[in-house]
Amino acid sequence: MKPVCLVIGAGAGIGGTVGAKFAAEGYHAVLCRRSDEEGLDRLVSNIRDAGGEASGFLMDATEDGSIEERVDQVEAEIGPIDTVIYNLGAQIGNRTLDDTPHRAFELGWRLGTYGLFRIAKKVCPLMVERGKGNILVTSATAAVRGNAGQHSHAAAMGGRRMLCQTLNAEYAPQGIHIAHIIVDGSVDAPDTLGKLLGPELFKKLRETQGAKDGLLQPEKIAETYFHLAQQHRSVWTHEIDLRCYTDIPWWNSSDIGRSVASEV
Amino acid sequence: MKPVCLVIGAGAGIGGTVGAKFAAEGYHAVLCRRSDEEGLDRLVSNIRDAGGEASGFLMDATEDGSIEERVDQVEAEIGPIDTVIYNLGAQIGNRTLDDTPHRAFELGWRLGTYGLFRIAKKVCPLMVERGKGNILVTSATAAVRGNAGQHSHAAAMGGRRMLCQTLNAEYAPQGIHIAHIIVDGSVDAPDTLGKLLGPELFKKLRETQGAKDGLLQPEKIAETYFHLAQQHRSVWTHEIDLRCYTDIPWWNSSDIGRSVASEV
Amino acid sequence: MKPVCLVIGAGAGIGGTVGAKFAAEGYHAVLCRRSDEEGLDRLVSNIRDAGGEASGFLMDATEDGSIEERVDQVEAEIGPIDTVIYNLGAQIGNRTLDDTPHRAFELGWRLGTYGLFRIAKKVCPLMVERGKGNILVTSATAAVRGNAGQHSHAAAMGGRRMLCQTLNAEYAPQGIHIAHIIVDGSVDAPDTLGKLLGPELFKKLRETQGAKDGLLQPEKIAETYFHLAQQHRSVWTHEIDLRCYTDIPWWNSSDIGRSVASEV
Amino acid sequence: MKPVCLVIGAGAGIGGTVGAKFAAEGYHAVLCRRSDEEGLDRLVSNIRDAGGEASGFLMDATEDGSIEERVDQVEAEIGPIDTVIYNLGAQIGNRTLDDTPHRAFELGWRLGTYGLFRIAKKVCPLMVERGKGNILVTSATAAVRGNAGQHSHAAAMGGRRMLCQTLNAEYAPQGIHIAHIIVDGSVDAPDTLGKLLGPELFKKLRETQGAKDGLLQPEKIAETYFHLAQQHRSVWTHEIDLRCYTDIPWWNSSDIGRSVASEV
Repeated sequence: MKPVCLVIGAGAGIGGTVGAKFAAEGYHAVLCRRSDEEGLDRLVSNIRDAGGEASGFLMDATEDGSIEERVDQVEAEIGPIDTVIYNLGAQIGNRTLDDTPHRAFELGWRLGTYGLFRIAKKVCPLMVERGKGNILVTSATAAVRGNAGQHSHAAAMGGRRMLCQTLNAEYAPQGIHIAHIIVDGSVDAPDTLGKLLGPELFKKLRETQGAKDGLLQPEKIAETYFHLAQQHRSVWTHEIDLRCYTDIPWWNSSDIGRSVASEV
Repeated sequence: MKPVCLVIGAGAGIGGTVGAKFAAEGYHAVLCRRSDEEGLDRLVSNIRDAGGEASGFLMDATEDGSIEERVDQVEAEIGPIDTVIYNLGAQIGNRTLDDTPHRAFELGWRLGTYGLFRIAKKVCPLMVERGKGNILVTSATAAVRGNAGQHSHAAAMGGRRMLCQTLNAEYAPQGIHIAHIIVDGSVDAPDTLGKLLGPELFKKLRETQGAKDGLLQPEKIAETYFHLAQQHRSVWTHEIDLRCYTDIPWWNSSDIGRSVASEV
Repeated sequence: MKPVCLVIGAGAGIGGTVGAKFAAEGYHAVLCRRSDEEGLDRLVSNIRDAGGEASGFLMDATEDGSIEERVDQVEAEIGPIDTVIYNLGAQIGNRTLDDTPHRAFELGWRLGTYGLFRIAKKVCPLMVERGKGNILVTSATAAVRGNAGQHSHAAAMGGRRMLCQTLNAEYAPQGIHIAHIIVDGSVDAPDTLGKLLGPELFKKLRETQGAKDGLLQPEKIAETYFHLAQQHRSVWTHEIDLRCYTDIPWWNSSDIGRSVASEV
Repeated sequence: MKPVCLVIGAGAGIGGTVGAKFAAEGYHAVLCRRSDEEGLDRLVSNIRDAGGEASGFLMDATEDGSIEERVDQVEAEIGPIDTVIYNLGAQIGNRTLDDTPHRAFELGWRLGTYGLFRIAKKVCPLMVERGKGNILVTSATAAVRGNAGQHSHAAAMGGRRMLCQTLNAEYAPQGIHIAHIIVDGSVDAPDTLGKLLGPELFKKLRETQGAKDGLLQPEKIAETYFHLAQQHRSVWTHEIDLRCYTDIPWWNSSDIGRSVASEV
């Protein structure tokens, strides 16, 4: 029986591609996403066509019980979950506070923070029993700095990051590797960036910036995810960032003269 | 009409004392807390006895509409809110993940993150119209690092910190000063530390550690809160930490040999 | 005998103005700077004309023994040093690596890091004996993030920040308050920004940005420095940032789409 | 001609082992260290015996010109430097400020910060010309927090970290991948930890803590270094941490009650 890699948030970007990478390396990939059955089927078929094992489920992760029942089912019918890829985003674009409804703020938390709490609460005891397991959490720039218009997203991601640290503090000594992965840039992902920009703009961006490796490529991201899951327990990484060579890191704004502060 | 200092979370520690400081400096202090009418009345009386203006309200800040209605009432009946002290804690003590119910995790978010979002959404437009205002947010070590047993608290405070940054990014240029204040240690506060430890232990701690200024004194904390509210808009502080001179800062653990990493 | 406030790096910006503030509050201000005797005399005279006490010294702080001898002299002839304002900058403008000579990099370290080590080594034993003292360190954005062209400055400031933490770890429990103050923006300072921009550009900047409080005003900065020096030892601040209400904080770059990372 | 992996600081821990890993993967490993010719020869022989290519040099990296001449020689006689492993440590154990001579503080800077500046200044133009290259910098906990007794080390590492960011800002867009690797714990390294503890204590530590994977194993560290050097330029990591599953991360001190700050 193959170890299971359970992907929560398996679109045609990071989630699906990381699942495919794990499948290619001998895992059974379980892909979960909220909608687009056709897209999900395509991801599963692609993995199977390449000789890998995969299953797909449509699931609304914000519903109480949804994640929990999925874990039960996977453990009972497919195999022990070795690695969770928690890849649910909460980005709703830039919105002023006025334009951020209470419901949107709460939804951000449900996707960005609470869902991770829920799946950790469910799988950690199973992993502790087996003495091992990985929880790889896709995160964003907003986890380390809150920018204008990102009220919902940043609050959700900031909570996510701290939660990764509390989980690590409790579970690392029990053999569970938790990694918080800051994806600091735009991913070449049709299901997120593509939908945000629309097909034309997205196509253009790929042909210009993307052609010079200026968009994070999911296949390459997947290699680092897989490396993290294979790290020996004497050398675990808890936090890592990923960005294009041409992208300005989040901590480098371009303001000139900003550091002319003190004097001789 | 005096400017109003609205304190959300006004116990007999930071909240009540900061309120009293602002009242002594010419503000009308509006003190809100969930329970203990007697304690609340005492805080209000003390301020009035000292010649200051104060009002007190019992209020469950986690209830939808509670904060919002209070703001409306204060603006209509007392005066324009110049400064908000957001002082709701979400500390529930150290608990394993297993011992952290879903409800507790959600409550942490409601108190720690969502309440701040709600009050900001309500008062920021008012402050923008007046071209000025302060939102001073009490925060904790858990906002910058998640420790074992702090799943609910750290996630809530991490979200709070990022939210302070997104609010600052949108509202600082419009004249609203938002400050995130990391209280990195134990406060000499009967309503929180006192209740956590019980009367005997708390008394003992005060007589030993407290006698050497080893507990943060609310009156002294209040001076820095007031200073922040008075900073000129050309020199605003967004983040500041406060701790006892004898406390080890959160970033300094005591492990020896930890940094023997590289070699000659 | 008045307590002494010793300013290392006393130009007509933060350094001189903080010295004047302390003098106005009852300290003897000792102003040290490398050059411009006339400018120094003016600062001293202004303080004296206002009824305060001040002394001025020209001194090359990068010379071995210079700081050390000054401390000896001040302690012997003027009074006990209560507060050190370490205000030496190391900003040399934006330069590529190729355009940053070895000597410039070393000078940055001598001004930015080594000088602080030297003065701490000299005054801390004196302050420990007296059971109290303050070392307030002006720092810059470059202490928390290294930007393009800032090789020398950022390395120096990054070292400075960590040194402040090691000094705090050793000396806070012994009564010495060390504060690292991040000045995150352009200061309305003729001796630094003024010289960097030239008189015409500087004048223009003051009339536009400055007129809307868009440059940090040294007089207002000085109020926070003084507040820090007065904080009760139960509530010391170790790190604080200061910036204009209109300035984008260092952690907020303006890139759009940067946080579109994960997917549903 | 094989690409060269140049290791500055090649002891029998991280440096030598990373060199061996790169040699095993097809690089020519050039190992540089200050002393112990026998130890150096052993590292080189081991690589050659395993079928790899390696060269070894004794070199005092703190001497002006030493690093620079080595780069010239390697480029002329061995091959183009593809990857630099900058692995010079500056740890001198825990020392009070009083017990940290000026010379020791300066040496820390020469090893920890200035040496990296020097090698970057020398190799970056070569790498830019070739459109690619890696500079992997071993760093320590002291780069992100300054602890008691670490004055020299923390100042040096704090400078190192900021320098990595300025180098990245300038050179990443030109194809040079710079990574700052925080080794947050004790490495199973005879040349550093072994010498610090002495042979008996080190043997004991290995048999107890080490036997449970409680010391970072250089062979496992080397895998992550190699992974970083192979990351596609669309997904570069700039900062990463490594620690044992049983080690408490630097940001998690064990103080209880520390976060009981605010109140309801």
